[in-house]
Amino acid sequence: MEKTLNVQGMTCGHCESAVKGALGDLDGVKDVQVSLDSGKVDVTYEEGKVTDEQMKEAVEDQGYDVK
Amino acid sequence: MEKTLNVQGMTCGHCESAVKGALGDLDGVKDVQVSLDSGKVDVTYEEGKVTDEQMKEAVEDQGYDVK
Repeated sequence: MEKTLNVQGMTCGHCESAVKGALGDLDGVKDVQVSLDSGKVDVTYEEGKVTDEQMKEAVEDQGYDVK
Repeated sequence: MEKTLNVQGMTCGHCESAVKGALGDLDGVKDVQVSLDSGKVDVTYEEGKVTDEQMKEAVEDQGYDVK
């Protein structure tokens, strides 16, 4: 399964790493691709292992808003 | 002694931490204050223990330009 999060406030490579790392640490997340320009974060995950809410919280915990 | 570096490309708190950490790790640097808005970085240091070039390189190694 794949879903796209729209993340606001990522400005640099450090931000990209922070978001990528936080999502990648979630159980069930297999791949994370971040586009800084668009703010789009594509997450590939195993259905049933991780919820939308967990992904959203992981990003928000790093200080970014999810639209 | 205190000097101000004009640093380009810092966009977020991670950038601030990276620059502050790199300068703070230099022998002879006693304090570092970063203003993200202006790009000004005030460094308090012990004269003779650290050179302008070392400070410049420390910042550039983190991926930022010093004017």
